[in-house]
Amino acid sequence: MMRKTNEGCRKLTLGQTARFLKNHNNYVILTHASPDGDTLGSAYALYYALNEIGKVAEVICPDVIPKKYDYFARKTDHIENENPTIIAVDVADSRLLGALEEEFGGKVDLCIDHHISNTKYAKNLYLDDDAAACAECIFELIGKMRVNLNDITAKAIYTGLATDTGCFKYSTVTKKTLLICAALYDYNINAAEINRLMFDTKSKKLIELESMVLNSAEFHFDDRCMVLTVTDEMQYKTGCSGTDLEGIAVISRSVEGVIAGVTLKQTGDDEFKVSLRTYSPLDASEICKTLGGGGHKGAAGASVKGDLATVKAKVLDAVKRNLDAI
Amino acid sequence: MMRKTNEGCRKLTLGQTARFLKNHNNYVILTHASPDGDTLGSAYALYYALNEIGKVAEVICPDVIPKKYDYFARKTDHIENENPTIIAVDVADSRLLGALEEEFGGKVDLCIDHHISNTKYAKNLYLDDDAAACAECIFELIGKMRVNLNDITAKAIYTGLATDTGCFKYSTVTKKTLLICAALYDYNINAAEINRLMFDTKSKKLIELESMVLNSAEFHFDDRCMVLTVTDEMQYKTGCSGTDLEGIAVISRSVEGVIAGVTLKQTGDDEFKVSLRTYSPLDASEICKTLGGGGHKGAAGASVKGDLATVKAKVLDAVKRNLDAI
Repeated sequence: MMRKTNEGCRKLTLGQTARFLKNHNNYVILTHASPDGDTLGSAYALYYALNEIGKVAEVICPDVIPKKYDYFARKTDHIENENPTIIAVDVADSRLLGALEEEFGGKVDLCIDHHISNTKYAKNLYLDDDAAACAECIFELIGKMRVNLNDITAKAIYTGLATDTGCFKYSTVTKKTLLICAALYDYNINAAEINRLMFDTKSKKLIELESMVLNSAEFHFDDRCMVLTVTDEMQYKTGCSGTDLEGIAVISRSVEGVIAGVTLKQTGDDEFKVSLRTYSPLDASEICKTLGGGGHKGAAGASVKGDLATVKAKVLDAVKRNLDAI
Repeated sequence: MMRKTNEGCRKLTLGQTARFLKNHNNYVILTHASPDGDTLGSAYALYYALNEIGKVAEVICPDVIPKKYDYFARKTDHIENENPTIIAVDVADSRLLGALEEEFGGKVDLCIDHHISNTKYAKNLYLDDDAAACAECIFELIGKMRVNLNDITAKAIYTGLATDTGCFKYSTVTKKTLLICAALYDYNINAAEINRLMFDTKSKKLIELESMVLNSAEFHFDDRCMVLTVTDEMQYKTGCSGTDLEGIAVISRSVEGVIAGVTLKQTGDDEFKVSLRTYSPLDASEICKTLGGGGHKGAAGASVKGDLATVKAKVLDAVKRNLDAI
C-alpha cells in the first residue's frame, strides 16, 4: 500500500470546507487510533451536525472507544453506500489511522485538522494550526454551514476543547477558544461533570501504579532532576500498560525546582523507554539525541538498552552534562 | 472585641460600589487569612485599578503571601493616612481575617465578595453570589469605574478566576466567567505559565507525602469506599502540614467507582480529623453527623477520638450503614 503524499493535496478555506460538506451525502468519519477527547469530540460533533442537515454518516474509530465518552459517542448508523466520502478529523498523518490505515489511508477525501505537522495525505485539507483543538475547527465549520448546535453536539465540542487544552490550561488556548467555550455554555453541557470524568477520575489500578512510581522517586543534582521508574513488575502487578502510563511523565516535571523530569519505563528484559520533560534552559531533545532518541525542546524520549542501573546511569550522565553547561 | 453583625450592613449595586470607590481616596485592602489566588488576585487587581485613577492604597494580608504569587503581588505603599477606607475582598466572615480580625474586623467599610454565606459584617457590601470568583466582581467593578486594565491587573484577575474554578473546571463557571477570561486574553497575561505555577507545581515534600498517603490506600465495600491515612509520623517525616494537606481529600474521591472517599488525618495522639467526600446518592453530611461533625452533601468532616484502628472502624461502620441503605 502506498501512503498518500502531499502532492495534489488541496488546501480548503473554511467556506470551501462548509460547501464541500453540504455538497456530498454519505460520510464515513474517521478518528485517529488511541482515540482522545478531541478526535472523538470532533468526529461526533461533525456527525451530529451532518445528521441535522439530513446527511447520512458513520463514525469509525480504529480502536475501542473508552466508555467514559459514552455521553456523546453513541453508536452511529452503518453506511451502506459503496462510495462514501471519507473524512478524517484530528488525524495529522495517515499512519495515525492505525488499524484503518490499510483500508482508508490513501482514500481520505477531506481531512480537518489543527496540527501544524499535518502530512497532507488527504485529497482536501482544512487546517487551522492556530486552533487549540480540532473541535475548534468543527465549531467554526458548523457555524459556517449555518447548522444549529444542540446539547449533545455542544458536549462533544466542549470535550474536544477541554481535553486538548488540559481544561484551558495550556499555551495553545486563545481568546477564540474561550469565546467558543462561552458560546457552548448556551447549551446544557454540564461541563463540570464532563471535566470530572475527563480530569478527576482515575482507575484503581492507576492509583496503585502511581503509588509505586512515587515510591521510586529519586532526586539528583540539588533536586533539579527527578527520576521516576516504571518496571515490568509494577505494570504486571497493577495491570497498567499503554495509555495508562501517559500521565506518569507529567508527574516527573511537576515538582518545584525540578527542570529535568526523567521517567524510565521498562519495555523489555533489558530495555527502557526514557521520557524526559525539561524546563528552559534545558533542552530535552538535545539530551535525548545523545541517547539515540529525539523530540521537542520540552519533551523528548529515547529507547536505551541495559538493566535499570545502567540505563539510569547513562541518562543521569547525559542530564548532568547539560545541567553543568547552563 | 465585638464582631460586627448584619444589622446596618448596606447592600450596594455595582454602580454604587464603583461610585464608592471613586469617592474615597486612601484605601487599605484586606485579604482573608491563608490567602489563595482569588483573594490575592482580587486585592491586587483592585489595588492596581485604584492606583490607575490616582488613589493611594495598601494591600494587607493576614499571613505571609506565598512566593508563587510574586508575578502580581508586589509590595504596596504603606498608607500614612490615619483614617483610611477599609475594603475586604473575598472575605465572607470577619473571622476569616485571622490575625487582622482584632484590628479591622469591626471596621470594614466595604466588602466585595461572591460567597452566598457572607455574614454581612461590613458597613457596605457588594455581593455577587453568581460570580465564580471574587475576581469576577473586581473585573466588573473596574469596567464600571471605566478604568483601563493593564497586563499586571489582568494577570491578577486571571489568577483569581483560574484558581477558584480549578482552571474553569467546576460547576461555578458561567458563560460570563468565560467571557471575562476571553477579555483578559487581550493583555499579555501568559496564562499557561500562571497555570503551571498554580496547578502543576508541587513541593518535593508534598510528592513525598502523597507517596506515603497512596501507600496507605485501602478499598472497602466492593471498592465503593477508599480510605487514605495521614499520620503524625508522615507529617513529621515530610514536613507537610496545614494547607499542604488540602489536596489529599480530593484524591480520595478521584477513583473510578468510589462514592465514599475517606481521609483520616491525625491531629493528636488520640484524635483524627475525618474528611469525607461523597458522590450521590451518598450524603457526606448525613454520615458525618453520626460522627459528631457536619458539612455539605458532597464534602463533610468530623473530629473523632481514638487510635487509628478505632477511628477507622467507626467511620467505616458509618459509611457501611449508609451504603447499605442505598
